[in-house]
Amino acid sequence: MHSKQELKKVHQRILPYIHRTPVLQSSLVNEISETKLFFKCENFQRMGAFKMRGATNAILQLSKEQQKKGVVTHSSGNFAQALSLAAKSIGVPAYIVMPSSAPQVKKDAVKTYGGKITECPPNLKNREETAQQIIRETGASFLHPSNDTNVILGQGTAAIELLTEIEDLEFIVTPVGGGGLIAGTALAAHFFGKNCKTIGAEPFEVDDAYRSLQSGKIEINETTNTIGDGLKTQLGDKNFPIIKEHVSQIIRVEEKEIIEALRLIWERMKIIIEPSSATALAAVLREKEKFRNKKTGIIISGGNVDLKNLPF
Amino acid sequence: MHSKQELKKVHQRILPYIHRTPVLQSSLVNEISETKLFFKCENFQRMGAFKMRGATNAILQLSKEQQKKGVVTHSSGNFAQALSLAAKSIGVPAYIVMPSSAPQVKKDAVKTYGGKITECPPNLKNREETAQQIIRETGASFLHPSNDTNVILGQGTAAIELLTEIEDLEFIVTPVGGGGLIAGTALAAHFFGKNCKTIGAEPFEVDDAYRSLQSGKIEINETTNTIGDGLKTQLGDKNFPIIKEHVSQIIRVEEKEIIEALRLIWERMKIIIEPSSATALAAVLREKEKFRNKKTGIIISGGNVDLKNLPF
Repeated sequence: MHSKQELKKVHQRILPYIHRTPVLQSSLVNEISETKLFFKCENFQRMGAFKMRGATNAILQLSKEQQKKGVVTHSSGNFAQALSLAAKSIGVPAYIVMPSSAPQVKKDAVKTYGGKITECPPNLKNREETAQQIIRETGASFLHPSNDTNVILGQGTAAIELLTEIEDLEFIVTPVGGGGLIAGTALAAHFFGKNCKTIGAEPFEVDDAYRSLQSGKIEINETTNTIGDGLKTQLGDKNFPIIKEHVSQIIRVEEKEIIEALRLIWERMKIIIEPSSATALAAVLREKEKFRNKKTGIIISGGNVDLKNLPF
Repeated sequence: MHSKQELKKVHQRILPYIHRTPVLQSSLVNEISETKLFFKCENFQRMGAFKMRGATNAILQLSKEQQKKGVVTHSSGNFAQALSLAAKSIGVPAYIVMPSSAPQVKKDAVKTYGGKITECPPNLKNREETAQQIIRETGASFLHPSNDTNVILGQGTAAIELLTEIEDLEFIVTPVGGGGLIAGTALAAHFFGKNCKTIGAEPFEVDDAYRSLQSGKIEINETTNTIGDGLKTQLGDKNFPIIKEHVSQIIRVEEKEIIEALRLIWERMKIIIEPSSATALAAVLREKEKFRNKKTGIIISGGNVDLKNLPF
């Protein structure tokens, strides 16, 4: 079982490697949402997303022997960049398996952060086999982007910082993708909040987590037609039990609500956030009654967007 | 003559009406520019630009009698919004003369902030006549966006705050449009800096200020083909003498350098700034040798952009 002490240790462990990101407020967005919102800006985190936290914790929890052999993951998103940068900061090799179809901009980002890319044909079976082969050859440790206890605990440190600044939050809302962020946040809210509820925000188009909480088992998405491209993955056996125990609700939002919330934050707060991150504000705006005049924290999960491909 | 005491009073006067905006740093942008940059983020100012400062000071310097009759300006840009919001905050009517051709989004913004719009045919003569007519009818005071001493002093307060936080800046770089911001900044650097030089950044396409400093008289632009749409205006008789005395250099930049600097700030710092604001970083990148390893302040003048019309 987890404890407040354990989470504190995780936070202390990763502190030298991460930014303490600011908590922003906007009187205009508060007026529109009729609530008191506190935005924890992980878009300003190193490499532009909260994933830096979990990746750092997971690498630091390996033995010196394991660290020497390196870490490996298969991802084409923020976790690949996070693992590369965290590994570089700690002085550990990072092997990243990426589908050959991944956009060049993502490959370049991983390279910038020092990750060693191995390309493979674009399907899950090939990605897993390629990762296995790297493990056999190098002895590197596989780290999963969201279904790994040390990753989950690391992601929870954003909420620890938020609750240290704003102690009496009644809600924290996070997007739900693979489940690492919301599981870590829910643990942090449980141990550091004063009766603070954790709520997930998920596009209707990929509502696997919503359905998983309904059915009691991990559901998958048949299609992934959402602008929230960080939210297409499914929950795992490490984070689902935490989510079942500590997440009070998952609110689903329409694609147009995500784009509207995205525009609101860009235009009014002048900060760049990912579409995935906008689901949290979209959920608050959709269920105004629930949040009216309540102090609500929002985890802005990241700010890595392709400026050539905006939905405005 | 101006004095440090006078500038301090201006700052105290407007403080209740403005945000104290943050000063951001980016290790990545520092690496690329090989300098130490401190970004004063007026894109986070109320209504999204530094113009809120000058408008507020100018209104507060009117007599109660004058305030009751209101203020008038002709502008289709940030000053129209700033004057509307400042007037509303202080409880004063604001009359805004706008060309009928102004984009609806700008008219809507002025209305949101409570400004009363009078439309006129789109040329300077009509704008001035319409403003004169409003003055005759209402007794309102005309306030110029940049060539007004109280406006200039108000704009300088952003640099006062920046120099209070980072006392030993060697340079402050601002964009140059109508000259209000750079004149106010230069006064602040003179009185509050420790041998801090003020440098202007101007697109080659609208280099009237550069040419004015060369010739010693106010020059105009024949064409205004720049992405920095806040920089098309010319200097005036109130700010030009200050600029001549206190600005050490104006650096001109290419359009593609502005866009590159804009992209760098959006992508790396995850903040939304106007193209006009990006000229300052573009100037630092263009003259790397000058700024190498020097502590340099950059005034990010604003963040009001049309998301439907981005240069990426």
